[in-house]
Amino acid sequence: MAKTPGNAISPTRKEDYAEWYQQVVKAADLAESSPVRGCMVIKPWGYAIWENIQRELDGMFKATGHRNAYFPLFIPKSFLEKEAEHVEGFAKECAVVTHHRLVQGKDGTLIPDPEAKLEEPLIVRPTSETIIGAMFAKWVQSYRDLPLLINQWANVVRWELRTRMFLRTTEFLWQEGHTAHETAEEAQEETRRMLDVYARFAESFMAMPVVRGLKSAAERFPGAVDTYSIEAMMQDRKALQAGTSHFLGQNFARASEIKFQSREGTEEHVWTTSWGMSTRMIGGLIMTHSDDDGLVLPPRVAPAHVVILPVLRSEETRSLVLDYVDQVAAELRASSFDGRPVLVEIDNREARGGQKQWEWIKKGIPLRLEIGPRDAERGTVSLARRDRPANEKMDIPRAELPQRLPALLTEMQDGLFERAKAFRAEHMRPIGSREEFFAFFTPGNAEKPEIHGGFAVSPWCGGSQCEAEIKEALKVTIRCLPIDPVDDGGLDRCVLCGGEKKATAVFAKSY
Amino acid sequence: MAKTPGNAISPTRKEDYAEWYQQVVKAADLAESSPVRGCMVIKPWGYAIWENIQRELDGMFKATGHRNAYFPLFIPKSFLEKEAEHVEGFAKECAVVTHHRLVQGKDGTLIPDPEAKLEEPLIVRPTSETIIGAMFAKWVQSYRDLPLLINQWANVVRWELRTRMFLRTTEFLWQEGHTAHETAEEAQEETRRMLDVYARFAESFMAMPVVRGLKSAAERFPGAVDTYSIEAMMQDRKALQAGTSHFLGQNFARASEIKFQSREGTEEHVWTTSWGMSTRMIGGLIMTHSDDDGLVLPPRVAPAHVVILPVLRSEETRSLVLDYVDQVAAELRASSFDGRPVLVEIDNREARGGQKQWEWIKKGIPLRLEIGPRDAERGTVSLARRDRPANEKMDIPRAELPQRLPALLTEMQDGLFERAKAFRAEHMRPIGSREEFFAFFTPGNAEKPEIHGGFAVSPWCGGSQCEAEIKEALKVTIRCLPIDPVDDGGLDRCVLCGGEKKATAVFAKSY
Repeated sequence: MAKTPGNAISPTRKEDYAEWYQQVVKAADLAESSPVRGCMVIKPWGYAIWENIQRELDGMFKATGHRNAYFPLFIPKSFLEKEAEHVEGFAKECAVVTHHRLVQGKDGTLIPDPEAKLEEPLIVRPTSETIIGAMFAKWVQSYRDLPLLINQWANVVRWELRTRMFLRTTEFLWQEGHTAHETAEEAQEETRRMLDVYARFAESFMAMPVVRGLKSAAERFPGAVDTYSIEAMMQDRKALQAGTSHFLGQNFARASEIKFQSREGTEEHVWTTSWGMSTRMIGGLIMTHSDDDGLVLPPRVAPAHVVILPVLRSEETRSLVLDYVDQVAAELRASSFDGRPVLVEIDNREARGGQKQWEWIKKGIPLRLEIGPRDAERGTVSLARRDRPANEKMDIPRAELPQRLPALLTEMQDGLFERAKAFRAEHMRPIGSREEFFAFFTPGNAEKPEIHGGFAVSPWCGGSQCEAEIKEALKVTIRCLPIDPVDDGGLDRCVLCGGEKKATAVFAKSY
Repeated sequence: MAKTPGNAISPTRKEDYAEWYQQVVKAADLAESSPVRGCMVIKPWGYAIWENIQRELDGMFKATGHRNAYFPLFIPKSFLEKEAEHVEGFAKECAVVTHHRLVQGKDGTLIPDPEAKLEEPLIVRPTSETIIGAMFAKWVQSYRDLPLLINQWANVVRWELRTRMFLRTTEFLWQEGHTAHETAEEAQEETRRMLDVYARFAESFMAMPVVRGLKSAAERFPGAVDTYSIEAMMQDRKALQAGTSHFLGQNFARASEIKFQSREGTEEHVWTTSWGMSTRMIGGLIMTHSDDDGLVLPPRVAPAHVVILPVLRSEETRSLVLDYVDQVAAELRASSFDGRPVLVEIDNREARGGQKQWEWIKKGIPLRLEIGPRDAERGTVSLARRDRPANEKMDIPRAELPQRLPALLTEMQDGLFERAKAFRAEHMRPIGSREEFFAFFTPGNAEKPEIHGGFAVSPWCGGSQCEAEIKEALKVTIRCLPIDPVDDGGLDRCVLCGGEKKATAVFAKSY
């Protein structure tokens, strides 16, 4: 227990943000890199977070009428080629299957069998618009078959050169929604509905405030008419695109020949949408809430809510403490938080109490209960919160726990959201002058390019030249044209060229 | 409603079993083949069955101390080569990734970019022992790190020449458990524990009776010391291997260098197990229970328990009926079956009542409630069960439904299990003579080779020659050496060579 708060993770956020992130992932035992280039292994504590994300999102999708299905991992090369912008966007970074067998080579090792070369190479799906489109074309005949509202939970592969755990990996896990509609309006409504589902999920479940908005043409999904996203501010003030929802118009319907007989008896192409959220969200979770002691988990997404750490100082009091611990655990498990039983871990491992406590702090568990012989005798527990300094402990009567603990969890969930909102408010502001804009995004310290202003809310002329200029000069992009009300300072000339404002944009560096 | 029971699916089981199976899959809208060779699309009704299987199995795994994680889709070729039998078993049927980019070829179409050829080909995982072994080697240092109990839900690829929906597809979904232990005994216990989990799951959840047993050497998993399986009898009397559990000894530990410091301070290799169950189980479900009217679903695994079919004959009574339907649905949803709310579908589509009813029969929904104006007036519903003839209907007072319906579902679940057990009992018997054995497996009708005796319980000398002979002559294999008590007729000479009996074996044709 010699450690004081503020240094369980080295380096700290201020010292080296990128390395701090890696160390938090490691200290919380969320994931690690694998021997396969760019692919990571998601370890049990990290995967349990993903399971919670899945359960919550899946419930929201089903509540909005979507059903799950599963489509092939492989996409014939010719399918990818059907939509011109789509193939342009994905052909450069895809895993290509060319053979279906290995055979002993001349040197004794295995080689792809030349006799088993595929006539047409298969692509490991980077996304599934084209293969799902081919099935939709079979499933849709009439307007009565619409809307078709499908979701898939799957792994996808995009060959990335520079990878970072959770944020950018060659293989990642996600869900991809794919829907087909009778009219453009309905498809647009669906696109916005799912954007709102993502925003609600991010804010209420992950305690991660987001800006909802429309992407500029330069940042659109390859093949989309409109791409919407939710954008969250990380603690280095960069933006993370946390979920996207695309209105695909009739582009993929034409590419895959998805046609239906309309109410008027004419043959029309359907209007489609797609939308996705991935394991990248876990990276966003880490960078929104964690501190220099490691991971901080909002209670709703935490794999466990509370860990009990028995203090076993002598053999004489051992069974007294352990019996008491079991009773406390049983009472807590019988209470509920967020519509499910409170999730309790008991850490009986033989290790020093201080070491165990710090392990759980680094794993981000919301609450810790220390229970020793005196607690057992007095009928109390010693409670510590992850959102308070590690040495701040409260004695609470055992009888009050089943009521107070769920209330505390709710308070922590709300508190983390408010803290993240306050952080964003501090680093997001209207900027109207070009000079100020450049200063905002130029680090004061050249050695720490990651330290900069944050989100600039600025008028934009709509020109792609202005976008390209700042991408080149500052690595800043338009994150979105916000739908949500934002303080735009009443500015009306493009912050970059001084031209007439077409829209207010949120500008930021991003992951 | 002109249709009478016994003919909603054409052909019937007797007429053409294999084609009947395809037609049941199609009529229930479970899955369909995709444009990708050997890969299928799992449609919402089929995928909902898989979600139920996942939820139940996942709960059983967690209750036995396992935690989920996720490992890479790709396996470096050199990893596969580490275990000699393993590579022998899988190299012949794997998808090989050789490039990570497509580029415009001379004819304008895309080709794998020669500049982006991988130095070492990657294999799309056919199973994950080798890649998980590489991670285990990092995670295990001491006996304190053991046992390591991990499960993964994933897609895998085995290049199959002849595929059949659910039963054998190039890509399939499964779970694969992988565990590491301090001693051989503990690993063997784990292997048997998970076999028992599978058996309990199959029998209590899927209502599918199974024989638990040990595989003969010829049928072992490539690289395993012992393979156990559960074997179920389909309605064509063939066996389906429904789940396998492998004791891997130290084979994979040696291949992946998974070592630990023992309690005695020596360095040892761990003992590992692996075990898997896949979407193939849905094929087994279909062939265990379905009839000539289509799919029959045991209530515990059904995506919905009851469909309400409003009878809307006139505009005047329309709202009367629909209001009543909503009330009945709300009352049913407030009652519970198997620890979850009763799952109710309301089919308001504009279609003939008979057509809708037959669609739901073919989808296997356990119960159908027809509700018309007279029901609304009298406070009744007309109930029909999927395990009874379609025209057998019972009038039930609405007030009794919330109690009676869950009881009925339990009765149906048990009834389906008993029926399947009776079917198996009828077609499984001890056979001691070679002549009788050959007759048992030789179809009476040469045009229908699928019609044969069933499971022969016979003494076996332990010789691989006897096994090879019947595989060649009859396409019969040893399904397992049963652990469960079976009637072996007290026979003691090998049914094939007359040699001394080493074990009693269950012989059958299989999927």
